[in-house]
Amino acid sequence: MRSTALLTDQYELTMLAAALGDGSAHRRCTFEVFARRLPNGRRYGVVAGTGRLVDALAHFRFEESELAIAAGFLDSSKTIDWLRDYRFTGDIDGYPEGELYFPGSPILSVRGSFAECVLLETLALSILNHDSAIASAAARMVSAADGRRMIEMGSRRAHELAAPSCSRAAYLAGFDATSNLEAVRRFGVPGAGTSAHAFTLLHSAADGAHEAAAFRGQIEALGIGTTLLVDTFDITQGVATAIEIAGPELGGVRIDSGDLGVLARQVRDQLDGLGATKTRIVVSGDLDEYAIAALRAEPVDAYGVGTSLVTGSGAPTAGMVYKLVEVDGLPVAKRSSHKESRGGTKKAIRLSRRTGTVVEEIVYPAAGNQPAANGFEVRELLAPLVRGGEPVDGLPTLADSRKLVARGLVSLPWEGLKLSAGEPAIPTTFVN
Amino acid sequence: MRSTALLTDQYELTMLAAALGDGSAHRRCTFEVFARRLPNGRRYGVVAGTGRLVDALAHFRFEESELAIAAGFLDSSKTIDWLRDYRFTGDIDGYPEGELYFPGSPILSVRGSFAECVLLETLALSILNHDSAIASAAARMVSAADGRRMIEMGSRRAHELAAPSCSRAAYLAGFDATSNLEAVRRFGVPGAGTSAHAFTLLHSAADGAHEAAAFRGQIEALGIGTTLLVDTFDITQGVATAIEIAGPELGGVRIDSGDLGVLARQVRDQLDGLGATKTRIVVSGDLDEYAIAALRAEPVDAYGVGTSLVTGSGAPTAGMVYKLVEVDGLPVAKRSSHKESRGGTKKAIRLSRRTGTVVEEIVYPAAGNQPAANGFEVRELLAPLVRGGEPVDGLPTLADSRKLVARGLVSLPWEGLKLSAGEPAIPTTFVN
Repeated sequence: MRSTALLTDQYELTMLAAALGDGSAHRRCTFEVFARRLPNGRRYGVVAGTGRLVDALAHFRFEESELAIAAGFLDSSKTIDWLRDYRFTGDIDGYPEGELYFPGSPILSVRGSFAECVLLETLALSILNHDSAIASAAARMVSAADGRRMIEMGSRRAHELAAPSCSRAAYLAGFDATSNLEAVRRFGVPGAGTSAHAFTLLHSAADGAHEAAAFRGQIEALGIGTTLLVDTFDITQGVATAIEIAGPELGGVRIDSGDLGVLARQVRDQLDGLGATKTRIVVSGDLDEYAIAALRAEPVDAYGVGTSLVTGSGAPTAGMVYKLVEVDGLPVAKRSSHKESRGGTKKAIRLSRRTGTVVEEIVYPAAGNQPAANGFEVRELLAPLVRGGEPVDGLPTLADSRKLVARGLVSLPWEGLKLSAGEPAIPTTFVN
Repeated sequence: MRSTALLTDQYELTMLAAALGDGSAHRRCTFEVFARRLPNGRRYGVVAGTGRLVDALAHFRFEESELAIAAGFLDSSKTIDWLRDYRFTGDIDGYPEGELYFPGSPILSVRGSFAECVLLETLALSILNHDSAIASAAARMVSAADGRRMIEMGSRRAHELAAPSCSRAAYLAGFDATSNLEAVRRFGVPGAGTSAHAFTLLHSAADGAHEAAAFRGQIEALGIGTTLLVDTFDITQGVATAIEIAGPELGGVRIDSGDLGVLARQVRDQLDGLGATKTRIVVSGDLDEYAIAALRAEPVDAYGVGTSLVTGSGAPTAGMVYKLVEVDGLPVAKRSSHKESRGGTKKAIRLSRRTGTVVEEIVYPAAGNQPAANGFEVRELLAPLVRGGEPVDGLPTLADSRKLVARGLVSLPWEGLKLSAGEPAIPTTFVN
């Protein structure tokens, strides 16, 4: 991985220069990451990106190429020298990747000198805001799909280097596979993919289209377990041709357009009539969590989801902020407007019934005592991620995080899984 | 740059395998990129990303690491061997980067064998969809700002590796500077940045906040040309303190919260009263094109724009598609639903009055004659980008594209610059 040090806003370096100049750079600070609200009346969010952030931190180094850019606007050699030696040596705690979060949850707590912490603001927010936005949307889709197979195929609607992170976040939230090959390589997400309209159209000649030739070519290359795309011309004809060529053992057919519910029923009937009772129906085409939910009663076996997933289904960023909350043991907070924040390093617990259903989150001063649980089960939410600048052992794997999301969704009160806009699934109490 | 070959959907490789298997892989094809519609009632779009795509194409190579991933789902050594030798050897034409586009504009035309063209679908769309979405939103903001300075500061709300492309797209569309240091390094976008609330809060002690100390530290390090952030506590007090410390030659003050219009007027009066008549007022905080327009009558000197810019202000992807339109000289098109496309390789011209105001776009068969211009000025929209797999000489620089956007905005009929939802600024005629 290339240096991540310039994935940073210029003002972090000018603040650093000023703080080194007036001696405040070495004050002990805590910065916290949190979201003031959940987007669009969502009822929960999913923390994602933590693992990528810890990886990126190891590559946050100013080599000569990065220093040259800094020297373009900083005339203090003191600052440049400080950057040359920069290593984050502080501590970071965070909600484990895959944990649910609510407004005000202290998702990340970064502690060290002002100088070493202030530089991480943009990198931490970029990663957490992006990945959490995607995972939060993905979890709602997974929940709406109710156990059916989910394939992420949105790469073409995302920045080319963001797309693999989208696949990763979707997988973490419960998707089964991705179309993105870089996500397969980099994160080990299972790959998936079959055919496109272009392949059918390729089999055209002066006398018209030859859908049968296209299907034959695909089956020849990929076997009868493949999924044929049947909606390039006429769907009923496409299904008939597919089974004629592949036989009733055909793996699946994909429908990418039209009224998917009506078509799924019609295609299921047709397939069953042809003896292809096990041929799966995959639907795709502008699906979001609402469209997925609307297809619950239909004979759909798998969903392919693209645009709405990679754009966070209306909330492309999680809106988290990185705020200085404590300086040399004293709580600090901005207080000029509605954008207020709560001072002081915090911890958080989540209370649940014996059944596992969560009832409340409590955010409290790290220096104080853990609040009384009133008979509920208690779970501490912040866990060590980095100590003395180094990742701790045993950080969650992607598979661990995937399980954590699944457990989190099960733990929500029934209301919390509703897709409609509403209040957060559980209240958060802030103890001063 | 690392290989870009895996920034690709798996189905492109399975289609390739099938096409190599049945002999259709070598048919001569044209794929076109276009948008079926503009998002949210927008009146124009801005083509962006073309330069990045041409760069990425040069790195689209399957080395052993990429081939290993392909071998994970392709069992044909023929396909793997073909990928090992893959170089795009075809031709690409496109709308110059920075050109305006409308629904159906053939923004990119990729010609070559099916095999070599089909592999580029995801990469081309990822780049064009992302960058065009950002540039299209940015152009509306620039237009609303009416010549005032625009600073892009949205990195924290974008994927960390997408953020520099956001900065580039914003600059292309007319923004003046970015906070993102990687964009400074990679694309030469001018950098900007001053201070944050954290720096002011850092200067706190047991007896409270010391805003004056923070301002002093910043001025010491960055000079009196700097911009001080005056809204951490009380804005009126902040401005008074700022001028007390910096004197009336202070470069600027930034307001990041509250009712920006009211505050800008109040702060302007206060600054003028203190003799700081040239101190600039920079506003930021959840600005989009509508908020920017609403501040037109206020004494604002510069806008800092973040979230809404990097999320495309409600349209985070341009929704472009990559469609096979011609095979061995024959037009082809899907015809099963509302998602129809028009077959055949196309060209496009834009007609304008002598005054420079555009009146119509005409998309016509590349094999046919250019349609009559009826006395209007004619501009051909597609220009060569790649010939025989190599970039042509003299592709537009970022500075060229920036000028092209500016010229494009001036060329629109007055209605076309309205921010409200409406029809495309000019009609497009499709000649068969």
